[in-house]
Amino acid sequence: MTPPATKVTPISGFPELLPADRLLELHFLDTIREVFELHGFAPLETRAVEPVERLLGKGGDADKEIYGVSRLAGEETGRDADLGLHFDLTVPFARYVLEHAGRLQFPFRRYQIQKVWRGERPQEGRFREFTQADIDVVDVGELAPHLEAEMPLVVAEAFRRLPVGEFRIQVNNRKVPEGFYLGIGLTDVAGTLRVVDKLAKIGPRKVTEQLVAAGATEEQARLALALADIRSGDLSFVDEVRALGVSHPTLDEGLRALAAVVAAGAEQAPGTLVADLSVARGLDYYTGTVYETQLVGSEEWGSVCSGGRYDSLASDGRTTYPGVGISIGLTRLVHLLVAKRGLTASRSTPAAVLVAVVDEESRARSGRVAATLRGRGVPCEVAPSAARFGKQIRYADRRGIPFVWFPGTDDAGDQVKDIRSGEQVDADAATWTCPAQDLRPAVVTRD
Amino acid sequence: MTPPATKVTPISGFPELLPADRLLELHFLDTIREVFELHGFAPLETRAVEPVERLLGKGGDADKEIYGVSRLAGEETGRDADLGLHFDLTVPFARYVLEHAGRLQFPFRRYQIQKVWRGERPQEGRFREFTQADIDVVDVGELAPHLEAEMPLVVAEAFRRLPVGEFRIQVNNRKVPEGFYLGIGLTDVAGTLRVVDKLAKIGPRKVTEQLVAAGATEEQARLALALADIRSGDLSFVDEVRALGVSHPTLDEGLRALAAVVAAGAEQAPGTLVADLSVARGLDYYTGTVYETQLVGSEEWGSVCSGGRYDSLASDGRTTYPGVGISIGLTRLVHLLVAKRGLTASRSTPAAVLVAVVDEESRARSGRVAATLRGRGVPCEVAPSAARFGKQIRYADRRGIPFVWFPGTDDAGDQVKDIRSGEQVDADAATWTCPAQDLRPAVVTRD
Repeated sequence: MTPPATKVTPISGFPELLPADRLLELHFLDTIREVFELHGFAPLETRAVEPVERLLGKGGDADKEIYGVSRLAGEETGRDADLGLHFDLTVPFARYVLEHAGRLQFPFRRYQIQKVWRGERPQEGRFREFTQADIDVVDVGELAPHLEAEMPLVVAEAFRRLPVGEFRIQVNNRKVPEGFYLGIGLTDVAGTLRVVDKLAKIGPRKVTEQLVAAGATEEQARLALALADIRSGDLSFVDEVRALGVSHPTLDEGLRALAAVVAAGAEQAPGTLVADLSVARGLDYYTGTVYETQLVGSEEWGSVCSGGRYDSLASDGRTTYPGVGISIGLTRLVHLLVAKRGLTASRSTPAAVLVAVVDEESRARSGRVAATLRGRGVPCEVAPSAARFGKQIRYADRRGIPFVWFPGTDDAGDQVKDIRSGEQVDADAATWTCPAQDLRPAVVTRD
Repeated sequence: MTPPATKVTPISGFPELLPADRLLELHFLDTIREVFELHGFAPLETRAVEPVERLLGKGGDADKEIYGVSRLAGEETGRDADLGLHFDLTVPFARYVLEHAGRLQFPFRRYQIQKVWRGERPQEGRFREFTQADIDVVDVGELAPHLEAEMPLVVAEAFRRLPVGEFRIQVNNRKVPEGFYLGIGLTDVAGTLRVVDKLAKIGPRKVTEQLVAAGATEEQARLALALADIRSGDLSFVDEVRALGVSHPTLDEGLRALAAVVAAGAEQAPGTLVADLSVARGLDYYTGTVYETQLVGSEEWGSVCSGGRYDSLASDGRTTYPGVGISIGLTRLVHLLVAKRGLTASRSTPAAVLVAVVDEESRARSGRVAATLRGRGVPCEVAPSAARFGKQIRYADRRGIPFVWFPGTDDAGDQVKDIRSGEQVDADAATWTCPAQDLRPAVVTRD
């Protein structure tokens, strides 16, 4: 019945963590969720599958990345064959809003932390199954512009609480390049954006070549590259764009909106937001502000948190629900921090205390100590066997559990030992206080 | 680009919750996770997919329930077609243990809370996509018997903290019916178990008919039914079985193990565990203790938490990793509590406070109040528009947000209003304390 051992192999692109690294990931998940909830985003989960026709056509090249799902038994293949696993959380959220609009309150703020699947070619830091942590706000008909400033500031607050080091959120507004391109006579806005989006990867010479090949003049290509070269942490980017001498109503609109976002960032989280006029985002549903996020010193990892404003994603033909959102690529971020910066958790279990067992006859006594500690919020485990104490201490040590508890006998009271320092003291489970820094696993750097 | 509105429909068997009900579900998830962690279970997540050949043959009729997964793009169909979505968390966990055995510490205690998928015919309370919350302990070669007593006690502790009312965990040991059937000369143990397992559904007369049709004598059928009829919250079940006059070494072994589990339960959680000799569990990988859980008064919902001991699930041909685990059917449990007992959360957002906005010019001032409250752990939201205060209060009321905060002006200080009582008092964001019962959404019964 059991397949041979050779079958037990990783599946490329479907990552799994060891317990200590999963504890690190949970620290990220819990911190992000806490910040999302502090900002009044409601939790939401959507089903993992959507009709394939809803997934197709959303998100650019998504049709090449979708995993189809169907019952192996097959009698219903005809009915089920049109389901696919979602490749992001924005498309399912837009569908959820349309489906439940009558029972939601708008503007509707939600967060969603779930797995998504993409059948892309796996490479380092790119997975086929991964967790995203998203916030979005949607409203009916109109969306207040201050929400476009709020999204990256919520993420900045989460990142400041996480061991990611310095980071930078780059902001642009799709209307800036759109209006600019139209202002210089480049009418294929999407095509031009796609080429300029490759700037960091292929360099300015190749971008110029491709723009010219697509019909641009050398001067148009020069101006498009000059625009993409502008970045500033303050409002000076507006003058820099103006200095290029291009004018178009859409450009004006975009610059105004982008200036508002950058100004709000400068006030509430100085040094965090940077206007970067090269940011375009691949997904074709964005219509206004777009975001990308880099960890300083690890720019080669690419963006670890991206998003933007969309207008036509959720529409039933009569009513449109414009929205803005941002998404943390959690799996990617945590795996890179584990692999490249050596982060992990200080132990491989939530247990802060191992309650030793003197002999099997007194296991119930150890169980009562553990129950008392748990009742006071201290995670603990009772030793699995009544081995000699040296072996029980090694059991704790191998898992990084900092304390071993020795239940007393009729003659002597309980004692607790900090196995890191070796210090052993009298203790009472009903009053002992676990040091705050030991109650939960800490984030540490692997030796 | 946007599909017509008619396409936005639920998919049978793939449930989704509205925000208030999702907040109720999160309360369940958080409580269960907290209890699991207090007991020293390490968090784990496995990938959603396994090779189909690993899923087939595990878990009885699972082959009829598996969802296959393959890339729509198709170039790799040949390689990917052998992946399927997992239908439980035990089979992937066993595979994870085999794959990572060299880097795990045994006995290995883990919890896992994830979605699973089954292509079964959907019906009330049965879903095709649902969340399970599992704990398991595996060891190398041998598994300490006290662990079989521990699993249901951990679940009992979680359930006591949850608004599920009275519940009963039924325990049996596969070896009891196995040894009993062999003792009365019924050698098709699995076949007999399958028929007797239908007792609650089809009644004793039909069970007798089916057993006789399968070759049992009337007397053998009578004895098999008499065994299934035995249940007790104390150790009296042992004498009741003995009184049937059957003896077999496997029966003795099973009775001894079951008595140990029931005795541990009676000591640590009186009234929670019941020996119920009709419990068999469908999955064919169980070899010892098996568990099922009923909510008292809602027995027709079936088991909301099940599990058992398994010996050959994780084996690489040389080493076997026996394990024991129990799984809470979370989606099923929460959906039934919402639908049948009217449970939900007291509000549809985590926000306890809505910070009003006097006018758009002073939005930053409201933002600073919100930042101060958040810094002190109070979830809050800034009003999305500077509408008149009556409208802003209605915004809070419709979401169940209990407090509205009015930022002061140069002349007057801040005030906070409890919109349920109408009481409005002076307040300072740096010192105001949100009543503990309002900080998080509470569990309530729908009107």
